Amino acid sequence: MQRVVSEAALQAAFNCFVRSESGVRLGSFKVAVIAHQLAELTMELGMIGLGRMGANMAQRLAQGGHRVSGFDPNAEVRKSIESKGVQPAESLEALVAALPAPRVLWLMVPAGLITDSTIDKLLPLLAAGDTVIDGGNSNYKDTQRRGLALAEKGIRYVDCGTSGGIWGLAEGYSMMIGGEKAAVDHLKPIFETLAPAKDKGWGHVGPSGSGHFTKMIHNGIEYGMMQAYAEGFSILEHKQDFALDLHQVAEIWRTGSVVRSWLLDLTAAALEKNPKMTGIAPRVDDSGEGRWTVAEAIDLNVPAPVITLSLLQRLRSRDTDSYADKLLAAMRNQFGGHAITKE
Amino acid sequence: MQRVVSEAALQAAFNCFVRSESGVRLGSFKVAVIAHQLAELTMELGMIGLGRMGANMAQRLAQGGHRVSGFDPNAEVRKSIESKGVQPAESLEALVAALPAPRVLWLMVPAGLITDSTIDKLLPLLAAGDTVIDGGNSNYKDTQRRGLALAEKGIRYVDCGTSGGIWGLAEGYSMMIGGEKAAVDHLKPIFETLAPAKDKGWGHVGPSGSGHFTKMIHNGIEYGMMQAYAEGFSILEHKQDFALDLHQVAEIWRTGSVVRSWLLDLTAAALEKNPKMTGIAPRVDDSGEGRWTVAEAIDLNVPAPVITLSLLQRLRSRDTDSYADKLLAAMRNQFGGHAITKE
Amino acid sequence: MQRVVSEAALQAAFNCFVRSESGVRLGSFKVAVIAHQLAELTMELGMIGLGRMGANMAQRLAQGGHRVSGFDPNAEVRKSIESKGVQPAESLEALVAALPAPRVLWLMVPAGLITDSTIDKLLPLLAAGDTVIDGGNSNYKDTQRRGLALAEKGIRYVDCGTSGGIWGLAEGYSMMIGGEKAAVDHLKPIFETLAPAKDKGWGHVGPSGSGHFTKMIHNGIEYGMMQAYAEGFSILEHKQDFALDLHQVAEIWRTGSVVRSWLLDLTAAALEKNPKMTGIAPRVDDSGEGRWTVAEAIDLNVPAPVITLSLLQRLRSRDTDSYADKLLAAMRNQFGGHAITKE
Amino acid sequence: MQRVVSEAALQAAFNCFVRSESGVRLGSFKVAVIAHQLAELTMELGMIGLGRMGANMAQRLAQGGHRVSGFDPNAEVRKSIESKGVQPAESLEALVAALPAPRVLWLMVPAGLITDSTIDKLLPLLAAGDTVIDGGNSNYKDTQRRGLALAEKGIRYVDCGTSGGIWGLAEGYSMMIGGEKAAVDHLKPIFETLAPAKDKGWGHVGPSGSGHFTKMIHNGIEYGMMQAYAEGFSILEHKQDFALDLHQVAEIWRTGSVVRSWLLDLTAAALEKNPKMTGIAPRVDDSGEGRWTVAEAIDLNVPAPVITLSLLQRLRSRDTDSYADKLLAAMRNQFGGHAITKE
Repeated sequence: MQRVVSEAALQAAFNCFVRSESGVRLGSFKVAVIAHQLAELTMELGMIGLGRMGANMAQRLAQGGHRVSGFDPNAEVRKSIESKGVQPAESLEALVAALPAPRVLWLMVPAGLITDSTIDKLLPLLAAGDTVIDGGNSNYKDTQRRGLALAEKGIRYVDCGTSGGIWGLAEGYSMMIGGEKAAVDHLKPIFETLAPAKDKGWGHVGPSGSGHFTKMIHNGIEYGMMQAYAEGFSILEHKQDFALDLHQVAEIWRTGSVVRSWLLDLTAAALEKNPKMTGIAPRVDDSGEGRWTVAEAIDLNVPAPVITLSLLQRLRSRDTDSYADKLLAAMRNQFGGHAITKE
Repeated sequence: MQRVVSEAALQAAFNCFVRSESGVRLGSFKVAVIAHQLAELTMELGMIGLGRMGANMAQRLAQGGHRVSGFDPNAEVRKSIESKGVQPAESLEALVAALPAPRVLWLMVPAGLITDSTIDKLLPLLAAGDTVIDGGNSNYKDTQRRGLALAEKGIRYVDCGTSGGIWGLAEGYSMMIGGEKAAVDHLKPIFETLAPAKDKGWGHVGPSGSGHFTKMIHNGIEYGMMQAYAEGFSILEHKQDFALDLHQVAEIWRTGSVVRSWLLDLTAAALEKNPKMTGIAPRVDDSGEGRWTVAEAIDLNVPAPVITLSLLQRLRSRDTDSYADKLLAAMRNQFGGHAITKE
Repeated sequence: MQRVVSEAALQAAFNCFVRSESGVRLGSFKVAVIAHQLAELTMELGMIGLGRMGANMAQRLAQGGHRVSGFDPNAEVRKSIESKGVQPAESLEALVAALPAPRVLWLMVPAGLITDSTIDKLLPLLAAGDTVIDGGNSNYKDTQRRGLALAEKGIRYVDCGTSGGIWGLAEGYSMMIGGEKAAVDHLKPIFETLAPAKDKGWGHVGPSGSGHFTKMIHNGIEYGMMQAYAEGFSILEHKQDFALDLHQVAEIWRTGSVVRSWLLDLTAAALEKNPKMTGIAPRVDDSGEGRWTVAEAIDLNVPAPVITLSLLQRLRSRDTDSYADKLLAAMRNQFGGHAITKE
Repeated sequence: MQRVVSEAALQAAFNCFVRSESGVRLGSFKVAVIAHQLAELTMELGMIGLGRMGANMAQRLAQGGHRVSGFDPNAEVRKSIESKGVQPAESLEALVAALPAPRVLWLMVPAGLITDSTIDKLLPLLAAGDTVIDGGNSNYKDTQRRGLALAEKGIRYVDCGTSGGIWGLAEGYSMMIGGEKAAVDHLKPIFETLAPAKDKGWGHVGPSGSGHFTKMIHNGIEYGMMQAYAEGFSILEHKQDFALDLHQVAEIWRTGSVVRSWLLDLTAAALEKNPKMTGIAPRVDDSGEGRWTVAEAIDLNVPAPVITLSLLQRLRSRDTDSYADKLLAAMRNQFGGHAITKE
């Protein structure tokens, strides 16, 4: 199907009717525009770090018509990116040299020391007016520090908290952006292409650091939501009298219920594949944002028990030989003579 | 737009392209079927209880082509239902008399004593083969008890945990259904109409009580998700340095992010209207399902700290003169001489 | 040392001085009365249930000069009690027959069905004016029900929440007593003997059920305190840089610190014996009172997060193959491609 | 009473008997040595900071025979200390000059910037071989940093986590001490005097910082215990059917029960004075140690939910206009049409 439609039409939902061959109306359906993309402006950009996230984002930008170069220390990774429409560069120097001034560089490298060392290497190669975007999960305080340092050299530093994971390539990324307004405005075509829709899923939320801050809180909420689902499904699983089909329940909830969400969609997909979670160890990792959210909440005197407990449950999942529980067993034995289970 | 399409086409998403008048491709969009409804079978049903939920459900059923009668003790409510395509009945007796055998009656009354007393009044009016559906938030143990009592008289008792709130009329309800398979199969056309789509958002999950059980856990999860969002936005609100626009953040998260959900859509709507929550008391009520979920989790030895804490935070919101906190202040004064704030 | 002292002197602390043989003062010390007991009145009583708690309590009463008979279904247990000064009875009938009217019977049997069945067997043997004391951990609502039933026959029912565990024999029991004042007054000599001191560690707290209620809350607090210690010592244990001697720390805290307590004394004893908790499984059981405390707090709309979480941590210690954690790992894999640890 | 007793006798408990004038034995009691103190060695020391804690500690040291000078920036405080046997110094310089080399200086000033600035002022006045003790609630990481800095100049830095509050003057302090063994050994007479007993309530627990670390965890446990009591008493208070006398309950628990502790003794005292907590605002402050304990537990991957929740409840007590709760109310209104309470 290929038709010319007006912009106005794109906003509307269509009412369609299903008829039998003899023309009797059998029913109706609705269609609505769920995504549209008008390529208006393209930019040139260098992506630094071509891991899962960086490669996908570079590819989405290339598909959107932007000219994207990319660098990664791993040669194989550099090679594979070419097939995705991204021009590989052999070094940071080559990457920077390949870009027209003022340059735009997007960092998609692990937060912490690697981000700092990458910036240190970049600095001598850049000039006033260039822009560096940190799209990773940096701690917002690091971002503020780096932003100040780069500003001294006239380099614009933009922090872009990026959500969407492995689904971003197909569905677009949600981006919370911090930094100077002029710098963010300049990058608009990039954000419009990376986002799920031109005017959806991204925004300039405030000064330097505020993008990473907002993403950090996003992840804290994510912890809480995930834990809520996990607990609920665990109760369902343990109610053996009802022999519930957890995948079915998840599917029912996906439409019309109060708890419908994208995380529930993913949960349904996981439950369809493996309803008993066979072969999966009960071990939940955490990256930094949950911890930072908890620390920030306490710094701000905001009680956030559910986000906090969600983090603590993850710690607990890895504390498989709990000293605390052993000591509790020993204490019960001391005062009540309660039996201790031998290890 | 009115076209004949095949069922297969209804499942697909369409790729469309926007071209200029001279044929140059400007961009692309996708359309997908988001709802369809084929009226196949209609039923007759009596709705008992025409409050917000009952009236909306009766109306949705009537709009779907079913013949719906309704009773409510409140005369004004009975009157107003007529304009929604529902036939009012002056009494329970009149309602039952108006239905063809085997009768189908849907209870949408407050859980607990009122459900019991309504069933007591109905019982003498019903005959073997009739079906009673409890669509309210009954405790699943009450449902099991009632199901056994009605089964003795050959009356089918179906429990339908119903989610969707005030949005159900327009968007359809998510329904978790417990009871005998034959009874649920018989009611299929009703569930297909009430649901967001014929084959989405509803299902027969297990024996008597399992529908209400599943809905109870649904609500427990809802508590946890709500609390996670509330905590996250509260941290954002307290980060005054960044002067974040909470409505904007919610909108950004609604597309592409990991935390996107229907509850977030509603949160965005609430924040748009009243970003500072002006005039709203910090007081959160709870109905029974959260408490029952916590009790059930403990009975099943399932640790559910996030759902539990979410309930406790609601209790805390109403404990505005906390004895515990006063005693803590008094204890600190005792051991450390720390100042007590006078009330 | 054997002296006649006045009651008043018993209340005081003595200042003593240590001198060298030539009379030079070397230092000072204080002595204080830590326990005294004046036998004034003795009673006759039948103890039903000679498990750890029942046997110890019967022995303490016998040592205090009371005449105690005892019954237990286990013949060996009955035999062994004789050496502790308690007269064994071969049956409930024999026990009741051995007591002078009005009889006093102390139940020390498992809460729940066994308490009910024991009362059922006793009832035909008793007469108006007799007293039955339930010293076990009965749910206070059961106690209220039983109290009403026995009152109909003129039998006094007293609930005695009993704390002290295996240390009670030597140190005395803490007793929270519910029931009619006249009934409790009549039993005063028994409580005075069982308590750590005549006028310490026991009291009539309110009507029927209030003793068991108060004991239930006592146990809830106990859960919270134990968990607080366990968490604290676990943090110390994990701080490997400091290689702390946990037994030493517990000993330091036992005197002068804010966290000194009897539970800390026991913790120190456990740590002295086994500082690494070697051979102890990280598995913590719970009896009913913690669960009841959580349910009661929620019923009363009192937020009690610490007591609640303490219970949940015990459940967690036994949830060694957590479905919730597996699902969380599966969800993280779904959205972020994060690796799952294989089981 | 003034007698010469042997050291061995001091360890024992005495059995005493009460007899009537005619010699009939009426009962028995026990006495035990609860405190003794042999002045063996005295030291000279300068106390810096004569607030509640510093003044009391200086006084206890002076009473123990040590020669104590003291400095405080507040002239009135300096004046008042003289009556407690402490020699006031007009300046830090004067204090240092008044002490024989190698000097011993005890800091009892607020943690953080004031500790740092005090050390900065002291440094030029000190010489290699001098000892500085930080008895305050410094963060152990600050202590490690300061210890390294002072070690470079040959000055010994000892951290002494001090518990006991306003009761320490009379009962002695519990002290957890970090630093080099030789430095701690040298200060032994001071710790023996400050402690509740020569060989109780104090100890050298590990290297620099470990004393403050252990005290930090002590305070975390304290938070958990306090919260457990507060919740328990709050449940008792809300059980209005039983009209419990909370002071009586606390007194019963003080002897023989599992929950007996010094904090319970203080709670009983507070409840005796003001059982309804009249006039006390439900507002609980926190100093730094609770926050640091939570952060440290997370850093060490140790789940400590009860200590953490205890801190969060304190934050909650001060969040009197909770944005989170307002948003929850607004969300419930959005999806279910639930009424919002107006502020």
